[in-house]
Order: sequence, then structure tokens, then C-alpha cells
Amino acid sequence: MADLVAVTRHTSIAPIDGGITAPTGFRSAALHCGIKAKAGALDLAVLAVDTFASMAGLFTTNLAQAAPVLVSKRHLDVTRGTGCAIVVNSGCANACTGEEGLANARRMTEEVASALGCEPEQVLAASTGVIGVALPIDRVVAGIQEACSSLAHRKGSEAAQAIMTTDPFPKEHAVRVTTPRGSFSIGAMAKGSGMIEPNMATMLGFIATDAQVAPAMLHRALAESARDTFNAITVDGECSTNDSLFAMASGNSGVVIDEELYPALLDGLLSVSRPLALGIVRGGEGATKVIAVSVYDANTVDEARQVARTIANSPLVKTAVHGADPNWGRIVAAAGRAGVRFDMQRVTVRIGGILLFENGLPHDESAARAAEILKRDTVDIEISLGAGNASATIWGCDLSAEYVRINGEYRT
Amino acid sequence: MADLVAVTRHTSIAPIDGGITAPTGFRSAALHCGIKAKAGALDLAVLAVDTFASMAGLFTTNLAQAAPVLVSKRHLDVTRGTGCAIVVNSGCANACTGEEGLANARRMTEEVASALGCEPEQVLAASTGVIGVALPIDRVVAGIQEACSSLAHRKGSEAAQAIMTTDPFPKEHAVRVTTPRGSFSIGAMAKGSGMIEPNMATMLGFIATDAQVAPAMLHRALAESARDTFNAITVDGECSTNDSLFAMASGNSGVVIDEELYPALLDGLLSVSRPLALGIVRGGEGATKVIAVSVYDANTVDEARQVARTIANSPLVKTAVHGADPNWGRIVAAAGRAGVRFDMQRVTVRIGGILLFENGLPHDESAARAAEILKRDTVDIEISLGAGNASATIWGCDLSAEYVRINGEYRT
Repeated sequence: MADLVAVTRHTSIAPIDGGITAPTGFRSAALHCGIKAKAGALDLAVLAVDTFASMAGLFTTNLAQAAPVLVSKRHLDVTRGTGCAIVVNSGCANACTGEEGLANARRMTEEVASALGCEPEQVLAASTGVIGVALPIDRVVAGIQEACSSLAHRKGSEAAQAIMTTDPFPKEHAVRVTTPRGSFSIGAMAKGSGMIEPNMATMLGFIATDAQVAPAMLHRALAESARDTFNAITVDGECSTNDSLFAMASGNSGVVIDEELYPALLDGLLSVSRPLALGIVRGGEGATKVIAVSVYDANTVDEARQVARTIANSPLVKTAVHGADPNWGRIVAAAGRAGVRFDMQRVTVRIGGILLFENGLPHDESAARAAEILKRDTVDIEISLGAGNASATIWGCDLSAEYVRINGEYRT
Repeated sequence: MADLVAVTRHTSIAPIDGGITAPTGFRSAALHCGIKAKAGALDLAVLAVDTFASMAGLFTTNLAQAAPVLVSKRHLDVTRGTGCAIVVNSGCANACTGEEGLANARRMTEEVASALGCEPEQVLAASTGVIGVALPIDRVVAGIQEACSSLAHRKGSEAAQAIMTTDPFPKEHAVRVTTPRGSFSIGAMAKGSGMIEPNMATMLGFIATDAQVAPAMLHRALAESARDTFNAITVDGECSTNDSLFAMASGNSGVVIDEELYPALLDGLLSVSRPLALGIVRGGEGATKVIAVSVYDANTVDEARQVARTIANSPLVKTAVHGADPNWGRIVAAAGRAGVRFDMQRVTVRIGGILLFENGLPHDESAARAAEILKRDTVDIEISLGAGNASATIWGCDLSAEYVRINGEYRT
């Protein structure tokens, strides 16, 4: 897949180690507090800023919002985007848990605040795991107290493990952004979908930077970068009760992000977000292939995205890719029902660069070559609508019998 | 599932034999013309009216429309809803076949018109099967000539077989509607999804009646009945290139449908359409269960339908039902992302009548009983939004590994 990051002139971006704690000014701790049944399985993480940070959050648009989502949104409102820590647990989503759930989510922030010497509103919370089950709050509180006493600067990888449910692999990434006015770092971690006891897929993402960014600008950059990364992926078209993406900026690097350096911040956010977003897709339930659906020559970006999303979510397209079937007819039919107006006679469809449909007619002589390309673990589907000059890409995955098995097994 | 037909006062509806040719004034013929490879497999049907009929059609809303869809829409426009025959083939969708495909679809209507002594515009056409492949038009023409010379009044069941692709069973139904002003019959047949060479699911439906109905009223009744039957089902959320639903009224019964008898016609259409629509769902690719999703207490019928459709198409709900998992959390989450505003605190969720979610909290003590009900071959999911008093039902099916197998196998 082509790297779409257009690095700002005079700015360079290079990967570094350290994950979420790669930027200066952040400490983390992760431990097993006892939410997950398996002994020693990490299920709690605290991420703290040495002083204070600008903070921003994007949350699920589902009407059913988990207690930590409701609490974090409120805290960001109250503090207008400043804070000192985030607490995350896995193994329990604290969703559909009523007043008790809200009290438990608030309690998590209170315990962190008490240990770190800040206000509860300066702490955000996130949860992932089973829906409709209450948190074992006493164990969580004991875990938070222990975690806050063992925060350290180099433990990002443990935090990335503690937020996993049954993700097949941890997802973290960090980069150093070098600008004419100095360099800063961005670290990130995320978890995706994959559970033993089947429940909502729950996407959580966390980004830390030591750039100095005002809360409003941090929110703007987070939303803009998410549009083409975390919000441009789909495993099964489901939007969960807990989806949350947080960003924190400590300012420790001394590099102040203003309008001139905003593109450097945005490029840095894109650089850490894209591999994590693709990691979520690649680790999607039952997924064996990543499918990059790119729609070109649309009238607007929104229309391009709508067509790409419809194709990426089409069960017939997903199963065809799973079976390495270059079934352009399903791609055409999915595009045609996307609710966007265009002239089907001007549409072209390519799989892996091979032209399969043009002028309303198939190029079936190329099907065998396309079938070979479909055996790879990343598949590019490209559709030109022949209308305007807007484009968008959505990343999805194939639909396998394993997805059905994972999600059809009765909860134990 | 409760029968939702509210029979008009003084009107009774009773099932009868005969399928699409049960009403007087219709003849049909079906044969193997050679589109399907298997020797003797029926792949062509002609349905003819003895004199002339009012005709109406509803068609796919996909931008990619097959040649027979384009031709039939034009013919209905030209004749303002009158005609004498419909010709249908299976084994080839005649979609994405360009000018040649349009010429072939027109040729099919011309051959029928020539044999029956009417105008080509008085003949409608439908096709189902593989996309992007040209019709073997010489064989089709020879088949049409033979079929038109062997039309008979009692051969509806053969026609219902000839329109199948790999539907697991034929779908036909007929009723007699008795009103204070006389009785008339309605017969119908349909095909759904299920193919060996995986392609678009293609829904075709045909309804014949010997009531005397003006074309505009026939169209109105067809659209109204389809809303709660053929347009209220989903197998995989895909809308094909060929979906077509036709109605023909011969008038032979002498019963004139005016506003007073319109409800009787509508009830009759609902009576034949509902079992066919449910048959399509039950015979859906890989389906093992029918899921009836009913949404109550919505602000509008459209909102109720939107929430029901989102739940019925949710892969997480479909796999949970497949695995007999009473996973109300997935139902709540699907409802919450349906794009309709409501208060989640007022929502209730029932599976098979068993209350599982209320006041934002689960009733997990009832999960075991609900799991037993989920083992049945028809599952009722009921959601009250607690908002208004509109309701709607959508019928879907579960998602199985067999669906993935059917649609993931490379076309042979």
C-alpha cells in the first residue's frame, strides 16, 4: 500500500521505539488487577503526564454509550481539554451498567486523581470487554493504587498489552517529527476487535506527544487525522458502545505547534495512527486479508468515502476476496447501491491494478491474473466513478468462516 | 410468526393450489433451452395472458441495472401498464452486458410478441443468474418459440422451478379472495438467493390475478404490499442488479377493484407475498433460521424500519442468533448506530418474548431461557423504543459459515 503521508516541506518523520511513552513527560504502569480470569493477564493501565497536558477525545457515535465514554466526555468539557492521566481497563466494557456503572467509572478517575494529586475531572477513563457486566470495583481500585505508585517512563509496551482483549497482537507505534523549529515525538497504542467471549468489537486508541499544543488545536488535529485512519477502517460495519480515541500533549519538547507547524503535527499523527488502524483491521475477527478500497474521481470526498465504505462492508465482496474470486460484479453492485449518483457507464474497476470493468462491460480475460493477486494478504480495490476529482480510501478485511465461529459461540 | 394480514370485513382469503396460473386467464410454459449447463434443468419460462392485462412492476434501485430491467421499465412506460406476457430466464442475469445485452433483452420480448401476436412493448422480461455473461441468444430464441407454442393453464409449478438458480426449494403461493361482490384469485411465484457459481443474490417475483384492476391501482397495491413483504426482507443487505417484482391483472373474474375493494386486493397481495418473501429468507444462502425483527413505539414507521433493518443486517446479531446466543448487547448496539434518535433508557429488548434489557440494564437471569428459544428455526426479536407508536418488522436470517463457503468459492 502506498504511504499517503505527504511530509511537510522541511519536516521529516522517522519511527522510534517506546510506543505510547516514547514522548517525554509521560509515564505508564500496567498490571493484572483481576478483571480477566486468567492469572497474570494484564487488564489495567494508567497513563500519566508528569505535569499537565492538553487533552482531546473522539468518541463512539452510538446512542448506547458506555459509562467511561460518558464520564470522559464530561471531564473534557469541564476542563476544556486539559488533564493529567488516563486510566484504562480491559475485560469489562462497563457498558449498559446503569447508575452503578457511572459511579464505577467516576470512581476510577477519583482514585487516579487522589493518587496523583489532581482533580478527578483531569482524569479520563476507557474500558473494553464484556457488555452488561459490572466492574469488580474493589479490585480495580486496589489495582489503580498499585499502578499509580509504580508509574515509569519506559513501560509503554506493557500498557499496549493491558488494553488488549483477544487482539491477536499488541498495536503500538511511535515517531520523531523533526521540524525547522525543533523536534518532538508522538507515541500511540490501540486495541481492536477479537474476543473469546463474543461481544462488541471495541476500538480504543491513545496518542501521546511532547509537542506543545493548545487543546482546541489538538482536537482539530486528532479529528483530521482520525478521518483518514481510525475512522477509515471497518471490520464488520459495527460501531461499538465504547469506541474512544484520546490524545495528550505534554509540551515537554518545547516545540510549540502553531498554524505553521500544524501540518507537521498532523503528519505525525497520521504516521502513528495509520499503522495502528491497519493493525486493527489485520487483527480483525477472522480476518486473513486487508482490503484497501479506494474510490477516485468522485464529486466529493464524502461521496467517495460512502462508496468505498459500502464496498468494504459488503458481505459478498468480503467473501469473494476471502475466496480469491475477482468478482467485479459484486463491487459494481455494491457501488450501485451506495446511495451516490454517478454514471455506471463511466465506472472502471481494478483489482490489484488489473482492469476488470470498463464502459459497462467486463474484462474477464484478466480474471485469472486478478485471482492470483487476490491470494496476497493485502488487496487493493480501485474504482473510478468518472465524475469529479475527489477520492477516499477505506480499509476493511475479508469475511471468513472463522468470523462466524468467533461470534457465534455462546458466551461462557 | 403471527399472521399480520388484517382481512377486510366481509372479505375472506383462503389458500388454493395452482401457483402463478391459479387465476383464470393465464397460461405458462417452462423448458430447458440450454442456458444452464445441466441437461434438462428448466431455465426459461413464459407467462402469458389470454387477452390483455393491467401490468405493474417494481425494480431494483441499484444504479447498475440489468438489461431486462431497463427494457421492462421502458415497456411499462410506453404501454402505461398494459401487456400480454412476461418472459424470464435463469442461469444468466444479462447484467453488465452493454449494448449487446440490451439488444438481447429486447429480442426476447420481440420473439414472444411475434409468437403471441402482440407488440414487443406489451411483453416484459426478467433474467437471473451470472453477471457479466452474454445470453446464448439463439438458444433463448428457439426456447421462446417452443414455449409459446406449448402454453397451458395449469403449469405454474414448472414456471416456479424454471426461475430458480440454486434456491433450495421453489416458492409459489395462491389464494382465493372472496368479497361481497364476488371472488377472484391471486397466484404468485418468486426466486431468491442461492447460487453455485457465486454472484449477486437476485430477487424476482411475479404475481397474477384475475381481478379487474386499472394499471395505476395495480401499481399502488403492488408497491404497498411489497413495502411490508418483499421490501421488508434481507439476506445480506445486498441489493442486486436484477431485482424485479411484476404484477398482472387479467380481469377474467369479472370482479372490478375500485376503492371499496382495494383493501381486499391489498390483503390478497399481502397473503401471497408474505410466504414467498419469508421463503426467500428461509432459503437464503447458508441460512438456518429466520429472524423477525420488530421495532415498536418508534416516532415514525420509517424510523422503526430503519432500526429493524440495521439490527437484521448486523453481522454480530446474525452470528449471535446462529450460535443461539441471547446477546442483547449487540441488539442494543446495532439499534444505537441506526441513525435514529431515541432515549436508550426507555428501550426494551425481548427475544422470543423474554425481556432481556430494560431501563438501561440487563436481565441476564433470563438469558438461559432465551438461549433455548434461539434454537428454534424462527426467532422473534422485539425492541420497543419507548418514543411514539409506530412499528415495523423486517425479516432476515442468520449468518453461517456456509454463507462464507457459498460466496467465497471461486467461480468455476
